[in-house]
Amino acid sequence: MQDATLIQDEAFDPAAFARSHGSDHVADIVEKLNQQPAEAVAAVLTQLSPERAAEILDQPSLTEAAEVITLVPTSHAGRLLTAMADDRAADLFRELELPDRTRLLAQLALPIRQAILGLLGHSPHTAGGLMTTEFVSVPDKWTVREVLEYIRKVERTRETIYAIYVLDQNTQRLLQAVSLRRLIIANPDDPILSAARQITPVTTSPDADREEVARLITKYDLLAVPVVDDVSGRVLGIVTVDDVVDAILQESTEDVQKFGGMEAIDEPYLQTGFLEMIRKRAGWLCILFLGEMLTASAMQHYQAELDRALVLALFIPLIMSSGGNSGSQATSLLIRALALHELRLGDWWRVALRELPTGLTLGAILGLLGMTRITLWQQLGLFDYGPHWGLVAMTVGSALVGIVTFGSLSGSMLPFILKRVGFDPASASAPFVATLVDVTGLMIYFSIALVFLRGTLL
Amino acid sequence: MQDATLIQDEAFDPAAFARSHGSDHVADIVEKLNQQPAEAVAAVLTQLSPERAAEILDQPSLTEAAEVITLVPTSHAGRLLTAMADDRAADLFRELELPDRTRLLAQLALPIRQAILGLLGHSPHTAGGLMTTEFVSVPDKWTVREVLEYIRKVERTRETIYAIYVLDQNTQRLLQAVSLRRLIIANPDDPILSAARQITPVTTSPDADREEVARLITKYDLLAVPVVDDVSGRVLGIVTVDDVVDAILQESTEDVQKFGGMEAIDEPYLQTGFLEMIRKRAGWLCILFLGEMLTASAMQHYQAELDRALVLALFIPLIMSSGGNSGSQATSLLIRALALHELRLGDWWRVALRELPTGLTLGAILGLLGMTRITLWQQLGLFDYGPHWGLVAMTVGSALVGIVTFGSLSGSMLPFILKRVGFDPASASAPFVATLVDVTGLMIYFSIALVFLRGTLL
Repeated sequence: MQDATLIQDEAFDPAAFARSHGSDHVADIVEKLNQQPAEAVAAVLTQLSPERAAEILDQPSLTEAAEVITLVPTSHAGRLLTAMADDRAADLFRELELPDRTRLLAQLALPIRQAILGLLGHSPHTAGGLMTTEFVSVPDKWTVREVLEYIRKVERTRETIYAIYVLDQNTQRLLQAVSLRRLIIANPDDPILSAARQITPVTTSPDADREEVARLITKYDLLAVPVVDDVSGRVLGIVTVDDVVDAILQESTEDVQKFGGMEAIDEPYLQTGFLEMIRKRAGWLCILFLGEMLTASAMQHYQAELDRALVLALFIPLIMSSGGNSGSQATSLLIRALALHELRLGDWWRVALRELPTGLTLGAILGLLGMTRITLWQQLGLFDYGPHWGLVAMTVGSALVGIVTFGSLSGSMLPFILKRVGFDPASASAPFVATLVDVTGLMIYFSIALVFLRGTLL
Repeated sequence: MQDATLIQDEAFDPAAFARSHGSDHVADIVEKLNQQPAEAVAAVLTQLSPERAAEILDQPSLTEAAEVITLVPTSHAGRLLTAMADDRAADLFRELELPDRTRLLAQLALPIRQAILGLLGHSPHTAGGLMTTEFVSVPDKWTVREVLEYIRKVERTRETIYAIYVLDQNTQRLLQAVSLRRLIIANPDDPILSAARQITPVTTSPDADREEVARLITKYDLLAVPVVDDVSGRVLGIVTVDDVVDAILQESTEDVQKFGGMEAIDEPYLQTGFLEMIRKRAGWLCILFLGEMLTASAMQHYQAELDRALVLALFIPLIMSSGGNSGSQATSLLIRALALHELRLGDWWRVALRELPTGLTLGAILGLLGMTRITLWQQLGLFDYGPHWGLVAMTVGSALVGIVTFGSLSGSMLPFILKRVGFDPASASAPFVATLVDVTGLMIYFSIALVFLRGTLL
């Protein structure tokens, strides 16, 4: 597909593109550049002013940004990386091969290099990995006017100026966060601290998971949250709301993919290579397959019963899928409730107490449907389930109650169990629950059949 | 559970709570109030200043806010609703019964009442339903200094002051959006338009879906997006990033729940009533059950074959679940790719061209596993699949290739088909795909069995 694009755009002229799209929204430029090979993007970036080119590189939606920066002439690449937001530059360096990394790091002035190396020390899924060091901090002795003058001076090099962090002049510890909004309406001659809201500022630690950061920003309606060193109390950086929105979107994509029963992919669908795609999907598919093999073992175990009452086999897919479906519903409910902190680990028994009657009711509804189906077909002469069709209907109905209840209960408990043993509750996928329920479901079905049909069919 | 809380907190003292938590973060106060019955919350709100009480009501995380406001004395409730953000007040009115709605609307000054009634005219899932009318707009003739002075005056009554909308003095049409950031660094004597970036402002229409609004804000890294009337070009309101984050979280919860095979619930898990829960889950469960009944019909159709070769029944759950699992993977991938606009409707053939080889490869891997299982069990004497066990293994292996390929293809095409006929692609749930694949899977399995086993077992 990449090749098809290359052929279509053989006539692509980087200089003309830079001229004609120079004043477009940067996000729109990125969308157009994503259609082009990395060489063409690098050529466009070389044509633009470093500030404008850095704005383009700052967009997380620019695919292959790391490859692009390696194709820009080294000294120009250094200028671009300097002009970029440091958290985004660190993201690029994270993806670079060692020789390119060394070559380009050497182009940066010492303070920038140190900032980026510091950011690279954090895992990309933590507050430390999301944060930028380009924030506004001021000493607590300044007046509102001094702070505003300082902001005007440093604005260009800061990712956001909407939150200003007031530090203790001696210890450098964070005292207060002041919004630009409060600064604007404050008396210019007042000390900066008088403009603060005088409540403990919301902070996070560099190791906090990005989901936790997202929860803080959402809960407190912040534009940015400061990342504070646990020991020294100094502000290491800030995570801004737009980074968090990107993280939330990525996280929910990963959650849906995991719930679908695969490892999450890092790139958009069409950018993910064939082998990578197989790798991400085959692993879970094989594990589920091995688990599901137990159904074959269970069926073998009940072969004698099947031999005598083949009619039982007819309803196996129907009954098993109902258990899987009710389990999948319960799991999806609980995954989100845990992710949004609506429920705590200790609430498992409340959930179990709700899922038990819910499962029984849902099972009864499906059981009734199933029994009606068998009765109808039998009475209308559409199919002959044999002389004991009434007992068969009873078996199917009761099995549905048991299996749907088991599905709801185990589907709802699985996320709790995963969380308890330290896994992400979101790794409980619909296929995983279905497999779990399938094997048990078969055993429930045949056990109930033995109760109802012993002496007649079995 | 609600009752358990009531007993625990019989000694809850609203006045003491208002005193001791008056200066906490409002989100933390809301968390504590959510533990209390609506009467106690109303008592706390009556004790606090109207501004502070309105801040609490402004939090979307406050459960039962609508019930609370009906319990506050009418005239005080009017003050609270006036002090609240108008979009949030409209959300409350949306949930009120008609008598309460009329009683409380009568407490509001005419302009506020009109603004809220205007907002109530929009569906809550659209830009119009999310927007606030409390934004900053200024005529294009003003200087930067005039705008800053105006902002200082109106700051209290505006949801955000970080985006300022410049309107044509005569037509009231939106000309530019200026960020407070650019205003701060601009020369105070320059005309306001000189501080704008001179690019067409990003806008949305009142009927745009909240997902579309979220996409705009994310794509362009905005703090707010103006909602513009399609005909008059006037700004009706703005949607801010924090509303969008809430919308994204809600949307992804709904997506996971729908993918789990149920209708999305509106309230947190424990707040959803028993009957509501049954209603949201039973509908899809019954539809899936009715669909899955076709498997019973298919099995009845192949009863003669099953009678002759019962060994085939042993692998039915294994084979069917593999098809469902691969389908669920493909669906989860495509739902997100479509939701994030990584793919367009017209890309369906690219996806089909990728899923075909992917499905074949994954099917071959599982087929090999399945054949190995049968061979091992047979050779190790763990189970006797009969004299034609080799042919049975071939049947199972080939059926897995066919079914996994069919699962991947249909699982990936389903979201496209749903989108094409105007449904949300996210309504393609894992259980739905599994049901679709189950029925076809049985037919593939028995057809392949007929090819391999005719003349021997069949």
